[in-house]
Amino acid sequence: MDPSSFRRHGYALVEWIAEYLAGSERYPVLPRVAPGDVRRALPATAPERGEPFEAIFADFERVLVPALTHWNHPGFFGYFAITASAPGVLAEFLAAALNQQAMLWRTSPAATELEDVALGWLRGLLGLPDSFEGVIYDTASIASLHALAAARHAALPQTRETGLAGCPPLRVYCSEHAHSSVDKAVILLGLGHRALRHVPADDEFRMRADALGDALAEDRAAGITPLAVVATIGTTSTTSVDPVRAVADLCRREGVWLHVDAAYAGVTAMLPGYRPRFDGWEQADSIVVNPHKWLFVPFDLSAFYCRRMDVVRQAFSLVPEYLQTAEASRGARNLMDTGIQLGRRFRALKLWMVLRHVGAEGIRAALAEHIRLAQLFAGWVDADPDFERLAPVPFSVVCFRARPHGFRGTAAELDALNAQLLDAVNATGEVFLSHTRLNDRFVLRLAVGHLRTTEVHVARAWALLKRHIAQLATSIR
Amino acid sequence: MDPSSFRRHGYALVEWIAEYLAGSERYPVLPRVAPGDVRRALPATAPERGEPFEAIFADFERVLVPALTHWNHPGFFGYFAITASAPGVLAEFLAAALNQQAMLWRTSPAATELEDVALGWLRGLLGLPDSFEGVIYDTASIASLHALAAARHAALPQTRETGLAGCPPLRVYCSEHAHSSVDKAVILLGLGHRALRHVPADDEFRMRADALGDALAEDRAAGITPLAVVATIGTTSTTSVDPVRAVADLCRREGVWLHVDAAYAGVTAMLPGYRPRFDGWEQADSIVVNPHKWLFVPFDLSAFYCRRMDVVRQAFSLVPEYLQTAEASRGARNLMDTGIQLGRRFRALKLWMVLRHVGAEGIRAALAEHIRLAQLFAGWVDADPDFERLAPVPFSVVCFRARPHGFRGTAAELDALNAQLLDAVNATGEVFLSHTRLNDRFVLRLAVGHLRTTEVHVARAWALLKRHIAQLATSIR
Repeated sequence: MDPSSFRRHGYALVEWIAEYLAGSERYPVLPRVAPGDVRRALPATAPERGEPFEAIFADFERVLVPALTHWNHPGFFGYFAITASAPGVLAEFLAAALNQQAMLWRTSPAATELEDVALGWLRGLLGLPDSFEGVIYDTASIASLHALAAARHAALPQTRETGLAGCPPLRVYCSEHAHSSVDKAVILLGLGHRALRHVPADDEFRMRADALGDALAEDRAAGITPLAVVATIGTTSTTSVDPVRAVADLCRREGVWLHVDAAYAGVTAMLPGYRPRFDGWEQADSIVVNPHKWLFVPFDLSAFYCRRMDVVRQAFSLVPEYLQTAEASRGARNLMDTGIQLGRRFRALKLWMVLRHVGAEGIRAALAEHIRLAQLFAGWVDADPDFERLAPVPFSVVCFRARPHGFRGTAAELDALNAQLLDAVNATGEVFLSHTRLNDRFVLRLAVGHLRTTEVHVARAWALLKRHIAQLATSIR
Repeated sequence: MDPSSFRRHGYALVEWIAEYLAGSERYPVLPRVAPGDVRRALPATAPERGEPFEAIFADFERVLVPALTHWNHPGFFGYFAITASAPGVLAEFLAAALNQQAMLWRTSPAATELEDVALGWLRGLLGLPDSFEGVIYDTASIASLHALAAARHAALPQTRETGLAGCPPLRVYCSEHAHSSVDKAVILLGLGHRALRHVPADDEFRMRADALGDALAEDRAAGITPLAVVATIGTTSTTSVDPVRAVADLCRREGVWLHVDAAYAGVTAMLPGYRPRFDGWEQADSIVVNPHKWLFVPFDLSAFYCRRMDVVRQAFSLVPEYLQTAEASRGARNLMDTGIQLGRRFRALKLWMVLRHVGAEGIRAALAEHIRLAQLFAGWVDADPDFERLAPVPFSVVCFRARPHGFRGTAAELDALNAQLLDAVNATGEVFLSHTRLNDRFVLRLAVGHLRTTEVHVARAWALLKRHIAQLATSIR
């Protein structure tokens, strides 16, 4: 593609994206396609001759756009709502062209050092001490995997050479509400799923520190070696906050690695009023916070902070001859030494551009507004005789369900009603909510997190829920 | 950022990138900065107030551009040369704005199904049968990790639950020239580094099938269970090709998982004349090919093909309630089931756009030209009394060194001379070559792989090597 063609197509994309970022409401949040629709609309083999970009873009609009789930839509309230903000999108455009592969300082001094700078800025905003060294991974799954691998290495450094075959029984602990990536990491590391002990939570879905203490004591007595505890600040279903201070005290006493999964809620440590919830996290060995979740950075970018990054290096560092460079002896950091992935994109650029363009003040304001909107919605739920809230709302996610006044059906019928309600509301295309299960109940979740979500969108979600429950309840009676 | 500001900044970036992609020769390939330069040029804390994008972009140009290593420069001959081609860059721009998170079919039908389509196209071009199911990962490190995790699960399915603690001694095999990611995977999986047996290579750096057979027999006799063999088509140092057919026969006989690492050279299976080198790879259990290496797709995108993807699913699949969707029962594939990373970017878009825009014919022509350029360079080396070639050139990488006619120094002095030569040539900024070690000799590597690299660039590299070796040899005498 010659420069003038690139300009032409680039301009067309700028126009398209400008309209998309400002006007994604024109699309249904969840697409109206069935499995196989996209595949069937495209040829089964690659073209022999190259095609003009216009033709490819036309197919993008014809086949792919109708099959997109619009994560960048202000009515997206599913899972955790995220935003690809404009400065982040521009940064990714640049990063793609620069094609940095930051395995070594030498292969990208800019990406290597900007990662340090941007993670330092974020660390400062979060109020974490400088003793936490940072590294960017793709996802929290990979961050937590590194945390647990480092914990394994810290407890049993010989496993790097000799493996787990002769090791005593080992254990990792997390709340029953911890993320499934902890399960996957434990399996991958060869510890076995049974090595993960899910500690019971209290009635607000927080890990019970007393139950954790009991579990540790019981395992020690049975000859099992505790490796690590994963505490979560903002669990996936309800955004509950484990008692980090008490857990940290236990971990210190027991000499066990503490990993804090703050992938979603970690950014709220920037809000002065929210800092107390993070009490004790500065005692953690490692922490993960995902700027691609609630910091308006396009997916993917996960920030991993570790007070013992030397252990991560000891666990993984392995430098073949063809990657030896002189700079390592002159104080340059080679990012490949702190990860299992050799190749690394220039992810720091988008974090740096978003932090600068939005500014700390702007970020705090956006987070506070999202929390306000969630509280507002929770208030509507609480005040309505046909709905009930099923968990506290510490951040920007509301767990609730419909329970029409005078409803006389079984628990299973109430679950089915809520599943129908969810489908009906999502079918409007105006909003998208997801679900979870709590105490064996089907639960609706409204997660606020998109930068363009306003009170209008939240109110619209509520109006749709009210309208559709009225219709469904009528049809039931 | 409002739409008109986005347009303004977007246009400015299109201009900048258009000039960059066409004119990256204006920059030195390796930047002229020292460790710490970037960090010191930027503030230590995030700004409190948001800043205009112009100011951020000005700092990008002032601080970061001089610290970039220009992977997108036609004089980049280090490691494996790669290209962020224009259609791939445009695709990444779109993908960033769309911010798809393709963990479930529902969370992006377009990304889920386009991944299937684009990987099907690539599979067809590579001549692999449809029995290979594909999935896109970020890097070959992660792809090979999944391959070995699946091999572990296939041999010992109970490890998912009970871990490796009670298992018999296990072994993974690869050539002494295999990539370090195999070592890292074995460590991560809890097998221990000792579980990896490096099989000796022949004098052309190919794994010796007879030595592999002996190793397997010896280990079996010693009560060690072979888990997997990694064969490489295009090793990192010399791009040598392991005897895949013979290795595949051994693996089938022994019931051992065969993973083929064709991260770099796999794309040459598209060239009819090169297909014989791939003889036997269709017998592999899994294969990795990296479109971000030599298929002009911006980093990162690694294609993993597996004939037993059900094993990958069994090893990892784990679906919490909040990720249950109805589509799974209607034939939709959820990509989170074939990976340890829950989150997944819309990587297929760039592969699809590059395959369409360049076309199979265009790709074959580019690969053939890169191979021709490398052979040309190898010919110059062979014909020159002051240089010697140190490995065959099966693809587009040449391993060589200077050995000035009449040189009387020690082996260590010859190594030092070549290290100086490498530094001198790289200091010109016109080209960048990297190095390796073979048979305890310091070896220069010239890797051709950038789409805009022409005979002019390769000739210039040769001229610089000749000029600088003449200067260095004079100063030695």
